[in-house]
Parts: sequence; structure tokens; C-alpha cells
Amino acid sequence: MQESSVDSSGTRFTPLVVVELASDTAEETIAWLLSRIRDLQNNGGSELLVEQMGSGVGAEEEKENPNMFLVGASWQRMLVGAEEIGLFKEYNDGSMRGFTCANKHNFKDFKGDGDSFLSMAECQYIIKHELDTLRAKDETHVPGHTSAKLYPGKSIVRRLQSKGILIQIFPLHEKEELKRLTFSWYNKVKLSLQPLDEIRHYYGEGQALYFGFLEYFTFALVPMALIGVPYYLFDWEDYDKYVIFAAFNLVWCTVILELWKRCSASLAYRWGTLSRKKAFEEPRPGFHGVLGFNPVTGREEPLYPNAKRQLRVWLVSLPFVLLCLYLSMYIMMIYFQMEGWALTVNDEDPTFWTGVLVFIPSIIYAVVIEIMNIIYRYAAEFLTEWENHRLESSHQNHLILKVLVFNFFNCFASLFYIAFVMQDMLLLRQSLATLLITSQILNQFMEAFLPYWLQRRRNKKMIRKVQKRKNMEDKQLPLTEQVRLEADMSVYLGTFDDYLELFLLFGYVSLFSCVYPLAAVLVVLNNITEVYSDAFKMCRVFKRPFSDPAANIGVWQLAFEAMSVIAVVTNCALIGMSPQVKAYFQESEQQLIIWTVAIEHGLLAFKFILTFLIPDVPKHIQINLARLEFESLEALKRKKMLEASELSKTVQ
Amino acid sequence: MQESSVDSSGTRFTPLVVVELASDTAEETIAWLLSRIRDLQNNGGSELLVEQMGSGVGAEEEKENPNMFLVGASWQRMLVGAEEIGLFKEYNDGSMRGFTCANKHNFKDFKGDGDSFLSMAECQYIIKHELDTLRAKDETHVPGHTSAKLYPGKSIVRRLQSKGILIQIFPLHEKEELKRLTFSWYNKVKLSLQPLDEIRHYYGEGQALYFGFLEYFTFALVPMALIGVPYYLFDWEDYDKYVIFAAFNLVWCTVILELWKRCSASLAYRWGTLSRKKAFEEPRPGFHGVLGFNPVTGREEPLYPNAKRQLRVWLVSLPFVLLCLYLSMYIMMIYFQMEGWALTVNDEDPTFWTGVLVFIPSIIYAVVIEIMNIIYRYAAEFLTEWENHRLESSHQNHLILKVLVFNFFNCFASLFYIAFVMQDMLLLRQSLATLLITSQILNQFMEAFLPYWLQRRRNKKMIRKVQKRKNMEDKQLPLTEQVRLEADMSVYLGTFDDYLELFLLFGYVSLFSCVYPLAAVLVVLNNITEVYSDAFKMCRVFKRPFSDPAANIGVWQLAFEAMSVIAVVTNCALIGMSPQVKAYFQESEQQLIIWTVAIEHGLLAFKFILTFLIPDVPKHIQINLARLEFESLEALKRKKMLEASELSKTVQ
Repeated sequence: MQESSVDSSGTRFTPLVVVELASDTAEETIAWLLSRIRDLQNNGGSELLVEQMGSGVGAEEEKENPNMFLVGASWQRMLVGAEEIGLFKEYNDGSMRGFTCANKHNFKDFKGDGDSFLSMAECQYIIKHELDTLRAKDETHVPGHTSAKLYPGKSIVRRLQSKGILIQIFPLHEKEELKRLTFSWYNKVKLSLQPLDEIRHYYGEGQALYFGFLEYFTFALVPMALIGVPYYLFDWEDYDKYVIFAAFNLVWCTVILELWKRCSASLAYRWGTLSRKKAFEEPRPGFHGVLGFNPVTGREEPLYPNAKRQLRVWLVSLPFVLLCLYLSMYIMMIYFQMEGWALTVNDEDPTFWTGVLVFIPSIIYAVVIEIMNIIYRYAAEFLTEWENHRLESSHQNHLILKVLVFNFFNCFASLFYIAFVMQDMLLLRQSLATLLITSQILNQFMEAFLPYWLQRRRNKKMIRKVQKRKNMEDKQLPLTEQVRLEADMSVYLGTFDDYLELFLLFGYVSLFSCVYPLAAVLVVLNNITEVYSDAFKMCRVFKRPFSDPAANIGVWQLAFEAMSVIAVVTNCALIGMSPQVKAYFQESEQQLIIWTVAIEHGLLAFKFILTFLIPDVPKHIQINLARLEFESLEALKRKKMLEASELSKTVQ
Repeated sequence: MQESSVDSSGTRFTPLVVVELASDTAEETIAWLLSRIRDLQNNGGSELLVEQMGSGVGAEEEKENPNMFLVGASWQRMLVGAEEIGLFKEYNDGSMRGFTCANKHNFKDFKGDGDSFLSMAECQYIIKHELDTLRAKDETHVPGHTSAKLYPGKSIVRRLQSKGILIQIFPLHEKEELKRLTFSWYNKVKLSLQPLDEIRHYYGEGQALYFGFLEYFTFALVPMALIGVPYYLFDWEDYDKYVIFAAFNLVWCTVILELWKRCSASLAYRWGTLSRKKAFEEPRPGFHGVLGFNPVTGREEPLYPNAKRQLRVWLVSLPFVLLCLYLSMYIMMIYFQMEGWALTVNDEDPTFWTGVLVFIPSIIYAVVIEIMNIIYRYAAEFLTEWENHRLESSHQNHLILKVLVFNFFNCFASLFYIAFVMQDMLLLRQSLATLLITSQILNQFMEAFLPYWLQRRRNKKMIRKVQKRKNMEDKQLPLTEQVRLEADMSVYLGTFDDYLELFLLFGYVSLFSCVYPLAAVLVVLNNITEVYSDAFKMCRVFKRPFSDPAANIGVWQLAFEAMSVIAVVTNCALIGMSPQVKAYFQESEQQLIIWTVAIEHGLLAFKFILTFLIPDVPKHIQINLARLEFESLEALKRKKMLEASELSKTVQ
């Protein structure tokens, strides 16, 4: 177990969350904040346990921030919090139900003191929620910081964050559990699946769903890869074999996405997030506006006119995105010129070096695409921040939409151009291969090894420093050092980039893999290393993220489905352009096009019908959910009947 | 007000619902049923007031059914029922909230005794719900009818219905209110809109939404009609002008359907059905199976394996539908042969009579289509019944799907054939006009005037009979005669056929009106008479239907949206085929097709994006709903906090 800390009241507690304030924070502010956190819930406090962390070994020589606070809570408080956030836990009868303190003993795994009932990730989520909803009472500003205005009902933590007084707030790792997790996840050579339940236990549902999706996606690709290998080995120059492959591709895209929905619903049901109600969303920290009354809550809070936001979206963001798309197209054209030049050189005087030269423009273009994606990402974040969305979810949706559209265009425009304008299948195959391989290598490097290497250096420095002072025998760091080390780790920015990468890979496979059947094989290989590198960076490189009670992969499901619709169109067009099919319609090109379009429309219609026919939630889970709803309706009815009969007795 | 009746206990009550049992029902059964209906709720009864109706004036000479029962309820019971069905009423602050007896005084319009708080339609719905949920206790069969098996929890009324003991159950009209409604609805010459709120008050939300949609649809067609008239007047022979019309058509279809969703949400919010929870659905009366335990409720009830039902759907119903479609296509081909023959006759020796002859095949075909639709409708009902769906909603969905697909094919196949295979725009225009006009005339006749004429005869007979006996001065019939008259009226079969008609009209306009711009004008005219004839048949021809607390037009929204997608495809194809556009692509027909397809895909994508962009519920209603949800969350939180603080006090 983690070492324990002592609260000012003398209660021992396990520190779960670290709150770091700026080193120049006024004493007055700290005292006020701690008292508000410690205050009883009935007085508007959080009723949490909190303690200032002692200074580390190197405090004298290096400037260390003294304002680090460890936060925890008593078991009673934790259970009340679990009820407040509407946590679902397994009931005695095996179903998942919303936890309530009143019938806590009917929940499976609940043993007297509640130990091991809530996972550490759940406890940390509860503490974060309680801190986030700690609201100002009648303070007009943060004591000691007159510029940090407050008004009744304003989240104190959000204000401290937006004013830079609160630097960060993060959950602590648990060394023993992390060691067990890393062992079963990626340290042993294994043929088994990922330990999704353990990942969920340690990182929460959002992370676990990502890794679940990554695994599902990899397995879904295996048939494609298996079919792709003989294509690659035996028919390397036989371009017109790809009709069957494209048809297979079509069906495969639709079916795997539909099945994933069911798979995701099963996972979310098992983890209790499927029917959990969303809590009321607070405004995001960066949101600003003129103080007014929220029409929904009636509370005083900043308001920002929606019309103004829409103007920013339509008159600034949209033109900016279009400009970026134009720029990307311009660079694409330069690439084609370079490509043409390289080919001419190779044709005029083919040597080994000119053979290599042919690949150079593709590689440069692939690198440029990655760089443009990164730059655009920052621009999109800046723009979305400037659009000033009230809710984090709406901010995220606008950001994802911007990034998706650009990334899609940037990565696939050249392939579409080659396929449908130049109609050069050989060049398409070569471009696809270069793009895929280069971007994979770059990604793996940027995503895992670079941050790991930086973190390793930091880690070693810290261990050396501690050993110098203390002559420790074991390499285990004391709590204070561990907290400071974790505070310095990079922040994990959520699953956004990981999903984006999968989205683009899905695009390469579903759109064009019939031209380059080895794409699926490459993506499978990439995904296997991706599992390891993602697992590795989660456990070693980044700060532990707060868990996120997700019920599905959210807007990404939509993005993948949109991609699969585009895949139907692309594959039909590729089939229509194949020499094999063209041979059937030798007398009339028109007939060919009309038939291709008709079949494409039929397939699209079939796809939508299939989406309706396959239920999103498996039957047995539907029944379980209906049963719970029925029971609660019956209970309500019984209660009302009882009240009515009591009422009639009183009247008599 | 309605005349009142006296219950066996001596309470006077207003009869609201009539229950008719078979004339050969055993005395024992009647006594048992009445006692169960009258029994207290705590004893498992319905706690309603019920009385046997006296015999009418003609009882001696004609065989009249003596087993007619009038059902009503006390005001207290009605309020309890309103809470049980989760009725939404207007609150003091203007918002719509679920009614509860505990804070009944906070609802607007609630005055002491509750009179005029619930509308008669609501009261009748409550009584129907209470009768439907009257369940068997430990009876193994209906007393007096050993073949009518019962088991604990089985709905008694459903069993009596399925065994033919209960012939019908229907709500009574209210003469005075009906007179007011008919006056403001269709009896006065007026330029105002329909009195939707009054329709809702008298017939319930489902009916009112239908008439609301009919009105909305008519107004939405007005711009199309206005643009269509000059096209018809000035450009009769100028076929290639329809490019602009088709483009307008495209945008129009998408926009009106999206706006209707918002309009429907506004109506449903005002009427309190938008956020009302669906009650748990009982199995439908005709459902049969082997007795087992329902996995959701745990109650004993008949179960029917889903696999068996799916087999019936896929192996019998689907082939049957396909066979019918084939038959319909066969008849279409016969029509084209007749058409061709008539044209040849006219070409060889054109006289006035051969000019008329040219229109004859179209008219015959239109009549045959209507007859086939009716026959198919019965077959579809039989098949869906045989598929043995457990829930009424699933039964309805399967029926609607079957009927829709066939009607769509039957009505539009010939038009598609003429437009895209024969590419004869003149014939298309002529067919469209004939089909539209013939089917409208037939529909109006079959739907309103024929039933009205039958009902009028029946009405007169009854009045004559009563006058013969009683020498009444006023023409008002006494309650008993009124009930018997209403019992003989035809049953209103729901809005199915009315929506189907609108759906087909929408198809004619959105798919092909660019070829025959007068279609919109005809449909507008038809809709105006439709409002009157539908209103008339609701008020005079049919039994009053039970109200149906609908929040939207349900599956029809989907059907109309599917039609609008097909309209995009059709209109793009028509544009691509127009001589005007063809003139631009003189050198290459291929280029033309590719451009048409590309623009069509762009339009479809734009349509889907538009569907996402336009919110389904207007902003101010969203805010209202969010506020209610927030308030209930806050109330729950306060309650829990209170409980927790009480708990901690008890512990101390």
C-alpha cells in the first residue's frame, strides 16, 4: 500500500490526489483553501482530508515548490461521494446498479469498512469531482488575490486554475498495482489478450475502452491481412484481381463497426457506465464572458452570446480551415511536380541512385504531412479556445471536427488525386506504402520513445540525487520524492491522438487497401507495437490521468462510420475503374458508370438498413436494463400506492 | 354536460367509457368482472365506477345487446390515475411537469375539486389504462368461461378481448364540446388555422399531431405551388426549364422535414408529451405462446421464441412481399402494353374518341393500383398478425414497413420506369397527372363520403325509431340511444391510412413535380379538402378514438426522410437527363454522368450535415427541459444530503 499522511486533525489517510499551487501563493489563500476543502459538506465544504507535503531531499540547493498538497478522504466520505457521482457497482444479483449508502450492504464486494470496494481510480475521480464542485459562498474574490473574482456558486478550483494560482491537480500512481498491471499488460511475453478489466481498474473506463477498441480493431484486421498476404505474394503485378478484395473490404468495414458498438456496450455494461447518468456539466476553466444568470440553473455565471460564438466559428474558423486545406492542396501539387521530375530523371538514366530518388519525394511528402498535422493541431486548439465554448464537451467536439477534416484531407488528398484524377494504380500503391510506413515510424518515435527517453533522464537524475543524500539500500523512492517526480512527468493529453492515429490507419485500409493488400498487414503489425508503446507510455512516461467514466468511444464512432461510408464510394469507384470490369462493358463506358453508381447506391442503402437491423446493444443486456427499469417503476408505483392509502386513512 | 349514471354503491358519476360484452356472457362472468372493476386498488381492483346500461326504446322488437356497461371514476381516483400514467400538466411557473397528487395545488388550473383540470380525453385515457392493467390474482380462468385461461398478473381485459367475450371498449363523445369543436374546425368559412389545441383537448395528442402535420405540409407546399403555376401557364412545352425547379425541390424537401421536427417538438412540449416517459408496454391482445416467465418482469406470461418469429419474417413475409412486388411489376408491364396500343390507335386514326382512349389505360391503371393497395393491406395485416409480435409497437412497425414498401413500389414504379428507362418526359407528365388526380378522387370518396353516407342512414333510422316511440320534441337523443348509436359507428383505425396518403402525395411532389409543376397545386387543393373530410369523419362518422399521448409522428418522420433522400437521387438524375444540361456536355456523355453523380453525392452529404446542424428541439425548449432536469437533480442531492446528515446525527 501507499504510505499514509496525517491531516491537521490528526486523522491518518492515504494520499490520492496532489494539488500544486504556485510557489508565490499568499499564506492567506492557502489557509482559506485548506479550510474550505476540510469544511463539512453541510457548511458548503468538501469534507476531504488534506495535508501540505514536506520538503524533499534536494530542497536546499534546488528551488522546490513548497505548495504541494496531498488530498484524501475518509471511507465514509468516499461512499457518500460515490453516491453523489452516481457510480454503478455490481449488486448481489449480478446486475449493475447505482450505488447508494442506504443499501450499501447489498452490493457485492462490500465488506464492512468498504476497503477494496472502490478502486483507487474511482476514489481519485470522486475527489476530483468533489474539488471541482467546491463552490464559493459569499466570497467576492479569492482571499489574498483580489484579482481572482468569485461569485456565489462559482467553482473555486476552476477559478484558481484560470488565474494560474492552481498549477496542476493530478492523481498519484500506486507503485505495487502499477507493477502488477505492467507485468500482465506488456512485460511478459504472452499470447493472451490485454487485461482490460485491470486497465479499467487502474485508469478508468475511457482508457480501457480505447485499449479495447485498439485490440478489437487489430483482430478485425487479421482476416484482411490474411487475405492480403497471398495477394501480395502471388499477384504482385496483377492489378485487376482487386475486385474481390474491394468487395470484401466493403462488407468488412460495415460489419466490424456495427459489431464494435455491441462489443463496446457489453464492456460498458460490465463496467457500469452504460446506464450511468451524465452529471451536470460545469463551464470549462477557460470560459469567459459577462456575468449574468444561467437560464438553466438560475445561478450567476459568465454568459457569452451564442450568436457571437457562431460568428467566430463561421467567419473565422471555417475560412481558416478552408485556407489550410488550400495550402495542403498546394503542397500536394508541389509533391506531384517533384515526383514527376524524379521519374523523368530515373527514366532518362536509370541507376540505383535514381531508383532510390523515385521514393524520396514520397518520403519528404510524408514527413511534411506529419509536420503540417502537428502545426495545424496547435492552430486548431488556439482557434477552438478562442471560440470560447462554455462546455468542455462542445469544445472537444469542435476541436475534433477541425482536426479530423484537415487530417483526412492532408493524408488522403494525394491518394484520391492519384487514384481518380491520374488513375495511376502503380503510383497509388507506391504512395500508399510510403505514406503508411513513414507515418508509422514517425508516430511511434514521436509518441513513445522520445518522451520515454526524456522521462528516463529525469528519473535517473532524481534517483541519483536521492541516493547521494540518503544512501538508500532499496531503489524505492520515498513518498515525497515520488510525488515530486510524478509532478514533473508530462501530462497525458487524453486519447485524442491515439484515436486519430487509428482513424487514419482505418482510412488507409478501408479506402485503398485493395490496391495495396499489404496495408492491412502493416497496420496489424503497427497496432501490435502500438499496444505495447501506448501501454508503456501510460505506465511509465506520463502522469496518471484522472479516470473518465465513458460509456462508448463517443464522437469517434461517428468518425469511423463516416469513413466507412466514404470507403463504400471509393471502393465502388475503384471497382468500376478496374480493367476486369471494364472488359465487360467494352461497347459502352456510360453503361459501366451507370451500373457502378447504381450498385454503389444499393450498397449504401444496404449499409444503412444493416445499421438499423443490427441492434446496438446485445439482447441479454437489453433484457437486464429493461428489468432494472421495470423494477424501479414497480417500486415507485408501490411507494405511491402506499402514500395514497396512508392519505386516505388520514382523511378517514 | 353529459347525463350522469348511478353506480351500485349509489354514487352518481359521468359515464366516460363504454364496455360491451358478448350478449351470451354468463351472469357469473359479469358479476365477477364488475366486482373486480369496482374493487379497491389495494385489493388489486381498478376502483372505478361502473353501471349496466338500461335497455333502449327498441329493445323488445329488435335484438339489442343488454350487456353494455358505462364506466366512470371519482375525481380522487382520476387524479391518482393521472399520476400513475405520468401525465404532464402546466405548472404554476408555466413549465410542464409530471402531475403528482402531493403537490396538485401547484398546478395551474387546478381548482379544489379538480373539475375541468383533466380533459375528458385524458380521463378516458386514464380509465382505459386502468382497465387494461386490471390483472388476474389467483383465478385460473374467467369465472363462467373455463376456456378463457388466466394466470396471476394477466391483464383481464386483454384475455376477455382475445376470447371474444369483450366485444369492444370505446370512449363516449361529448355532444356539446363536439359541437363547439366542429364549429371552430370546419363548419365556419374561415381563413384561420385549425384549432390544434382544441383538437388535442378532444382527441388527444396523436390526432392533433396528425392534423398539425397535415396543416404544416400544406403550408410548406404553398411556395412550390406558387412557383409551379407560372411554369404550367407559360412553359407548358418547355421541358428543359425544370432544372431550376428540381434544384429548388431538393432544398425544399430537406428543409421542411427538419423544420417540422422542431415544430413537432414545440407542439409536444406545449402538450406535455415531449418528456413524458413511456409506460411499460403490455403484450398485445392477439399475442400467443407457451406460458413461461418473462425475463424482464419475472411474471408468468406467454413466450414465443424470437428465432421462430424471425424465421416467419424472413422465410414467409419477405418472399411474399417480393412476390407482390413482382406481381405489381407484371401489371405495370401490362399497363405499358395497353398504353402503347392506345397510342398506336390514336396515331393511326386520330379522332376525339381515340384522344380520350389515350387516357383510359392510365385511369384503369390508377384504379387497379388503388385496389391492389387495399388487397395488399389486408394481406399485410394478416401476415403481421401471424408473425405474432409481442408488442403493439413492434407489430405496427412491421406492418407499416410492409405496407410502405409495397405502396411506394406500386405507386411509383411506373413513373420511375417512364422517367429513367423510357426517358419519355411527356408520358411521365401525363401519367403523373392521371395517377395523382384519380387516386385523390378515389381516396376522398372511399375515405369520407362512403362511410358518411352509411352512417347517415343508420343515424336517421335510429332517430326515426326513437321519435316513433317517444314523440320527442327536441332532436337530442337520450343517453342510452346515444350510446347504442355510437356503439354501431365504424371504428376509427388510427392515423395510419391518413399518413400513408400524405406520404404518397409527398412522393409525387418531391420526386417528379419538376416534370409536372402543377402537382404541388393539386396536392395543396387535395390537402385543403383532406383537412375538411378528415375532420368531418373524425367528428361524425367514426367512434371517438382513445387519445394517444404521442410526442412525435414516430416512424413516419423516418419514412418521409427516406423519401426525401430518394428525391435527391431522382432529382439529380432528372437534371442530368435534361436537354439543357446535356447541351453543356455535348462532347462527352461520360463527363456528364460523372458530374451528375459527384453533385448528387455532394448534395447527399450536405443533407446529412444539415440534419446534424439543425437542432431537433428549439433552443428555448431545450433550456426549459434542462432546467427541469437540473432542478430534479438538485432536489435529489438536497434530499440525500439531508438523509446523510440525519444518519450522522443518529450515529452520534
